[in-house]
Amino acid sequence: MHSELVAALDIGGTKIAGALVDGAGGILVRAQRPTPAGESGETVARAVEAVLAELTASPLWPDVRAVGIGSAGPVDASAGTVSPVNVPAWRNFPLVERVHRAAGGRLPVRLVGDGVAIAAAEHWLGAARGHDNALCMVVSTGVGGGLVLGGRLHPGPTGNAGHIGHISVDLDGERCPCGGRGCVERIASGPHIARRALENGWRPGPDGDTTAAGVAAAARAGDPVALASFERAAQALAAGIAATATLVEIDIAVVGGGVAGAGDVLFTPLRRALRDYATLSFVRDLSVAPARTGTDAGLLGAAAAATAHRDPHPGLPAGVGGLTG
Amino acid sequence: MHSELVAALDIGGTKIAGALVDGAGGILVRAQRPTPAGESGETVARAVEAVLAELTASPLWPDVRAVGIGSAGPVDASAGTVSPVNVPAWRNFPLVERVHRAAGGRLPVRLVGDGVAIAAAEHWLGAARGHDNALCMVVSTGVGGGLVLGGRLHPGPTGNAGHIGHISVDLDGERCPCGGRGCVERIASGPHIARRALENGWRPGPDGDTTAAGVAAAARAGDPVALASFERAAQALAAGIAATATLVEIDIAVVGGGVAGAGDVLFTPLRRALRDYATLSFVRDLSVAPARTGTDAGLLGAAAAATAHRDPHPGLPAGVGGLTG
Repeated sequence: MHSELVAALDIGGTKIAGALVDGAGGILVRAQRPTPAGESGETVARAVEAVLAELTASPLWPDVRAVGIGSAGPVDASAGTVSPVNVPAWRNFPLVERVHRAAGGRLPVRLVGDGVAIAAAEHWLGAARGHDNALCMVVSTGVGGGLVLGGRLHPGPTGNAGHIGHISVDLDGERCPCGGRGCVERIASGPHIARRALENGWRPGPDGDTTAAGVAAAARAGDPVALASFERAAQALAAGIAATATLVEIDIAVVGGGVAGAGDVLFTPLRRALRDYATLSFVRDLSVAPARTGTDAGLLGAAAAATAHRDPHPGLPAGVGGLTG
Repeated sequence: MHSELVAALDIGGTKIAGALVDGAGGILVRAQRPTPAGESGETVARAVEAVLAELTASPLWPDVRAVGIGSAGPVDASAGTVSPVNVPAWRNFPLVERVHRAAGGRLPVRLVGDGVAIAAAEHWLGAARGHDNALCMVVSTGVGGGLVLGGRLHPGPTGNAGHIGHISVDLDGERCPCGGRGCVERIASGPHIARRALENGWRPGPDGDTTAAGVAAAARAGDPVALASFERAAQALAAGIAATATLVEIDIAVVGGGVAGAGDVLFTPLRRALRDYATLSFVRDLSVAPARTGTDAGLLGAAAAATAHRDPHPGLPAGVGGLTG
């Protein structure tokens, strides 16, 4: 008997992962499908249902008390719909209703954006544990995030809060695909770290790796162009983190995702740049830490968002998820 | 009998204002002293006590249930201390304790930053009324602000949240006295609007007004340099407002202060620039409105912060104010 068992779905542009998660963050059952991102909305929905079918077939399923969904954004938690940038056929797709039905119609379903899910996971089990005010970020192909404020997850009315990748830190900067200018993501994401290094004359080593990981390896070996590209990313991240701290007061920023895997190549210039931007007395003591929940962060965060008792004051506004069983 | 009567203190670098405020926002008694900002900490404290003495002498005083303080920042609500930039002798000054004693030792005292107080006032009685998620700003000699999130005032653990004037929107921009670079205040405050116009060749009219008000008058008359200076300020404000909306989800930004008095000269380019920076689906419908609570905003906000019943869920963390009677 697992009195705290929940089902979690982590829906991204590449894969749809599902799990049954216990009250200690243990993953007891897993299921996964590739996201048929270029296909019809129905085809994508059927992939979600296939993942859920594996979970509902588990002998543990009768103990499941709630379903949590972390989805690529934007999401609209108040309407229960999602419109992931990387899944073009889903626009205002009623995901909460579909999942509610596929899960048997008896369980509460809660939806948050994937950045919010990461924050829930890091607050529950990772580097933000014990911190009442935290920003948790993913720096990878994109830059996303979520907030914990006053000890509670802060998804915002639509479940998208903490979207630090698309705040502008360079108001005259280059256009971002989002329509803005000088967004954090446009400067600090992995592809932009690699692009900037290549534009400035960096060439990959014998392994031919032209990704941010290749740039990180070169930076570790002392390549000045590679170092400069990471420093520029760190500067943009620092400006964004400092802005968040100045706006809502956080005491820790947790950074995960592939680019954070560069370790000191990112974190050393990031901590240095924070001294330039986090200047007011109430933000100066802000710390920065690598994320700890790893590749299961999305699933664990969806599980955390699923139930109030994972978070003493979940702060989910009325209507989040649209359906409550 | 005024069952909801509170005492309010609005402490700035120029004046110390006090009032008794009823449950409908009516100001029943007023007191005021100039701030002896260049003098000793004790001299400044005695000016506060003189204001309080006038309030305690009122026949209404026995009905007062709480004291609220909005102070120039930074403040530290968890310690009950203030360190206003414009009052050099007050560094970690134990204002809450002094006020608690001067008010007779029987009343709860709550401290918030002046930007948070403005937000409390606009949420209670002004343009943010009925909005559960709002940013309220003052654009004047400086740029400050405060947040309402999920229907509650969000002062943050130290009472300084919403400090939008010192987020960077131009990471390579000019140094700000705060130590940062490209802060919103460095671009959008009244003195910087005037400085930029003068540097670019604008000259004041026959009245010799070289302040932002003079620039606003010239802009209304069509002066292109004056218009450009307001447009640049609007761009920085838009980037900051959009960043706030993207981070925490707000549906309205309320803008007050002397520079907002320029009216359409500010608000028209501000609304236009917001379309460039507030691009994600969940922030696109953000509206912008002028503040309504006027010169008493600081007092009304201090009054609102004083008591829980002005705000159904005040969101003030444990320990705000340091003393609770």
